[in-house]
Amino acid sequence: MQPKTLAELNDCSRQDFVAALANIFEYSPWIAEQAASQRPFAGVIPLFAAMKSAVDRATPELRLALIKAHPDLANKTQRAAGLTAESSAEQNSVGLDRLSDAEYDAFERVNNAYRAKFGFPYIVCVRRHTKDSILRDFERRLPNDGATETQVSIEEIGRIAALRLDQQVASEDRLKVHGRLSTHVLDTHSGKPAAGIAVELVELSELGSIRVVTRAITNSDGRTDQPLIGGRPVPIGRYELTFSVGRYFAERGVPLSDPPFLDSIPLRFSVSEPEGHLHVPLLVTPWSYATYRGS
Amino acid sequence: MQPKTLAELNDCSRQDFVAALANIFEYSPWIAEQAASQRPFAGVIPLFAAMKSAVDRATPELRLALIKAHPDLANKTQRAAGLTAESSAEQNSVGLDRLSDAEYDAFERVNNAYRAKFGFPYIVCVRRHTKDSILRDFERRLPNDGATETQVSIEEIGRIAALRLDQQVASEDRLKVHGRLSTHVLDTHSGKPAAGIAVELVELSELGSIRVVTRAITNSDGRTDQPLIGGRPVPIGRYELTFSVGRYFAERGVPLSDPPFLDSIPLRFSVSEPEGHLHVPLLVTPWSYATYRGS
Amino acid sequence: MQPKTLAELNDCSRQDFVAALANIFEYSPWIAEQAASQRPFAGVIPLFAAMKSAVDRATPELRLALIKAHPDLANKTQRAAGLTAESSAEQNSVGLDRLSDAEYDAFERVNNAYRAKFGFPYIVCVRRHTKDSILRDFERRLPNDGATETQVSIEEIGRIAALRLDQQVASEDRLKVHGRLSTHVLDTHSGKPAAGIAVELVELSELGSIRVVTRAITNSDGRTDQPLIGGRPVPIGRYELTFSVGRYFAERGVPLSDPPFLDSIPLRFSVSEPEGHLHVPLLVTPWSYATYRGS
Amino acid sequence: MQPKTLAELNDCSRQDFVAALANIFEYSPWIAEQAASQRPFAGVIPLFAAMKSAVDRATPELRLALIKAHPDLANKTQRAAGLTAESSAEQNSVGLDRLSDAEYDAFERVNNAYRAKFGFPYIVCVRRHTKDSILRDFERRLPNDGATETQVSIEEIGRIAALRLDQQVASEDRLKVHGRLSTHVLDTHSGKPAAGIAVELVELSELGSIRVVTRAITNSDGRTDQPLIGGRPVPIGRYELTFSVGRYFAERGVPLSDPPFLDSIPLRFSVSEPEGHLHVPLLVTPWSYATYRGS
Repeated sequence: MQPKTLAELNDCSRQDFVAALANIFEYSPWIAEQAASQRPFAGVIPLFAAMKSAVDRATPELRLALIKAHPDLANKTQRAAGLTAESSAEQNSVGLDRLSDAEYDAFERVNNAYRAKFGFPYIVCVRRHTKDSILRDFERRLPNDGATETQVSIEEIGRIAALRLDQQVASEDRLKVHGRLSTHVLDTHSGKPAAGIAVELVELSELGSIRVVTRAITNSDGRTDQPLIGGRPVPIGRYELTFSVGRYFAERGVPLSDPPFLDSIPLRFSVSEPEGHLHVPLLVTPWSYATYRGS
Repeated sequence: MQPKTLAELNDCSRQDFVAALANIFEYSPWIAEQAASQRPFAGVIPLFAAMKSAVDRATPELRLALIKAHPDLANKTQRAAGLTAESSAEQNSVGLDRLSDAEYDAFERVNNAYRAKFGFPYIVCVRRHTKDSILRDFERRLPNDGATETQVSIEEIGRIAALRLDQQVASEDRLKVHGRLSTHVLDTHSGKPAAGIAVELVELSELGSIRVVTRAITNSDGRTDQPLIGGRPVPIGRYELTFSVGRYFAERGVPLSDPPFLDSIPLRFSVSEPEGHLHVPLLVTPWSYATYRGS
Repeated sequence: MQPKTLAELNDCSRQDFVAALANIFEYSPWIAEQAASQRPFAGVIPLFAAMKSAVDRATPELRLALIKAHPDLANKTQRAAGLTAESSAEQNSVGLDRLSDAEYDAFERVNNAYRAKFGFPYIVCVRRHTKDSILRDFERRLPNDGATETQVSIEEIGRIAALRLDQQVASEDRLKVHGRLSTHVLDTHSGKPAAGIAVELVELSELGSIRVVTRAITNSDGRTDQPLIGGRPVPIGRYELTFSVGRYFAERGVPLSDPPFLDSIPLRFSVSEPEGHLHVPLLVTPWSYATYRGS
Repeated sequence: MQPKTLAELNDCSRQDFVAALANIFEYSPWIAEQAASQRPFAGVIPLFAAMKSAVDRATPELRLALIKAHPDLANKTQRAAGLTAESSAEQNSVGLDRLSDAEYDAFERVNNAYRAKFGFPYIVCVRRHTKDSILRDFERRLPNDGATETQVSIEEIGRIAALRLDQQVASEDRLKVHGRLSTHVLDTHSGKPAAGIAVELVELSELGSIRVVTRAITNSDGRTDQPLIGGRPVPIGRYELTFSVGRYFAERGVPLSDPPFLDSIPLRFSVSEPEGHLHVPLLVTPWSYATYRGS
């Protein structure tokens, strides 16, 4: 059984420590090796700092090897041959295991163009992204020179590692790798939080697909019991949050036009800070509404 | 040449008068006949009142014949055999000449079910409707009894006739058959009307299709030079009005997140009063917006 | 030394218990006497229930004596002769110790008119009120009959007692006698909470005086470090909350008109539920603002 | 009888022309003299341009004499000795004939300090100002040098002249010397314009006084029949516009708290462009409201 808590990692053999953290940085146990000598760690934050520091101190050759140890995004052959469990879960989280043909082609073009120019795979911390923003970042990064992309890749690898460490090691301190997306609905017709409103969050995509992220019903505080997205990064991308207000007001006997002026209200917005707290409320009457970026 | 102005209609021969107004009520010149004796008319409003009154005074048999003179909605065979020019233009205005197969089937079911129950075609003033609201009204009307539907049909025929009269006869007074849908954009970041914002109005449909109604760019008053819909009824139905605000703020050098929190803002609303004035404004900053039903 | 915690009250002698709680109900130790036999109490809520129940079970004569044990509001002679410390603090909290001559006259008229009609003093739980609402409630209560006013007086006495008990006895459970008034300022020009905004809350009065309740500066969350009113009932009455936004935007280099369109923004509102949570936020740009009753 | 229309001015004797326009520029008929030779004028705009041009071409000595021909603001001795009818009406319009002692002292200090430094009176087009903004402009202008203030004074004299010309000469074209302040109230609880709301506009003053500018009731469009200020410059200054919404909602049977959360809503704002169109609307429910600078 592998160590899971910080205490266990501090107390176990060097060998078990390295085995437990071997894939925090993809196929690169040497990073855990170096961190092992600095035990005990007071928390997961200093543990991550020690691993990151090992990467920063490594020779250019070793850093390049770390980069090359990563798989291509959405590469079918590599998926068949086997990714680390971590890579597989991460790519699946953003939907890279269920791409349409058009999307698959788009990703393959990205991989090939990038690898052709830089000689290593296009690396991005996919849990912080949507399919759209992965492709958008690629457009932005491709013109860079090799030195810049080496640095950007190491940064992305650090983000990937931080998320893996956060998931796999229990500690009292937490790495700041999670964001939150929340909403609430205020019924300014009655002056009360709007309870019982059906809310749906979908992720939009330039490639045309729409992916339902979550559905919820507002509670007596006009909020959802759980944040719309929480306990993980809020992926950079475009979203639409829809509120079924027509039904809400009809059920309360409020006089409405027929059909109701407002029925299903979409709020369309983008997320740019995956680790931030983004609050998107709705202030609504049957005849008006407002929203704003809250925090 | 047919008389076109009210003065011409007042002055021409009885025969020309009847010929000019023969199809104001579909294939029913007897209505124009009766109105002819009441010339001269002070305006198009009393002219319409005279024609409407002829219908109201007619025998039940004649009123039924008037109803039966109307074509089915979207009936391909009838379209091939020939509609009045008026019927054809009206049905085309709502898109009944370019239905998808699914839509065609839906309309055919409506026609057949209605005709089977009542023995006459399903009549609705299509210029006041979208495809959606035509089908929705059908669901509401089908459970009625024959007497009610006879009355409802006569009312719809009156609305059709009023719109035809408004289009065909020039007079100083106007029948109240037109509505207006307008918007304006206020940039509450700079405290000024937002000029140069691309606006798109689409009609939504339960059947899935989206129809672009109009596109415009806001002028220096933050308004569109022409109303989004004007000079005709605003069809009952669901709409989405989209504003390209991301580009607007970016062009003005306003600091934005990347991607911008707000880019393309959709306002989704329904129209319930085709002859009303509906104003749907947008008050917007890069981080907030509000709308309301104005007038 | 008097017992102060629930544990001490449960453990002390009957005599000490009664002494400690003798004035929870004004000059009426017999209520504490009756509650004493029910010790131990699991919390202050059941303790209060026991005392309240003693009042409810009391004879009409005893209840009337309880009512008559209360002082007149703002009566100078009685104040000179000495009120209980509790009565004195309560009356002072609402400003009854520093009335203008006009206000003093108004209260004296109220006391006299009420006492003349009912034969006992006008009792109201002043911590839940402003001077205005005390006089307003009087106008509403004076037309009542004696039975109603006896009942209303007992209820007000219960509210007074609950607040005294809450202040004097420490317990893990809390009586629901406190409300909260809070605000926050969102700068929708920059999409961030507005930090450093000077806020002032004043109590308005029909009698003309304005009383500053509190002043604060918004913190980095756009909120005040402490609620504007908290840890006590929010007195029923009219308030004005003023935000110095002109200076805030000017200091951030935002282009403004001269003088700025918005400088000091007043929000005027009333409180009707002293034990409720009332949140009055401000969403603001240099050219627009909005507020709503939040919770 | 003096000529009043542009046609009359074009056609009358040179002597009558000069007599009619002698005080457009205070006590300076030489300006009308020079303009007289350029008759006929196509409109009041070219007439004003001709008079302005005469001032611009004048010698420094003559321009200084023009400046010195103006009275002090609010000077009691000069008022007693007699101002031109124009000066008197202008000063009265801003309330300079009914100053409190403190205000009178403030204006006297301004006049004396200014005259002591520059050797001529402090001139400002008072119809474009409130008492506050006159004093505020003084603080801004006093540090200037003589050349600058000579220029500023000539500009202010031009504004005074334009307003006098606009009032005294009827022409088809109009000088752009008028602004407008308007409001409207939208009831977003019912989705309709709010009719029957009492509105009061007051001018605020740092010196403490409050002056009622106008009172009105909103009509069925939620607007006031006349603009709050129109047909004249909107004086630079601070204002408060108050809406009696509590009564409005109560009369419509809308459920409210007691006292109502919102009753009398004040909007406090400043005017900075006397010739601009400023629209200050209110969007309101019993529990929320918003305003913005419209146009």
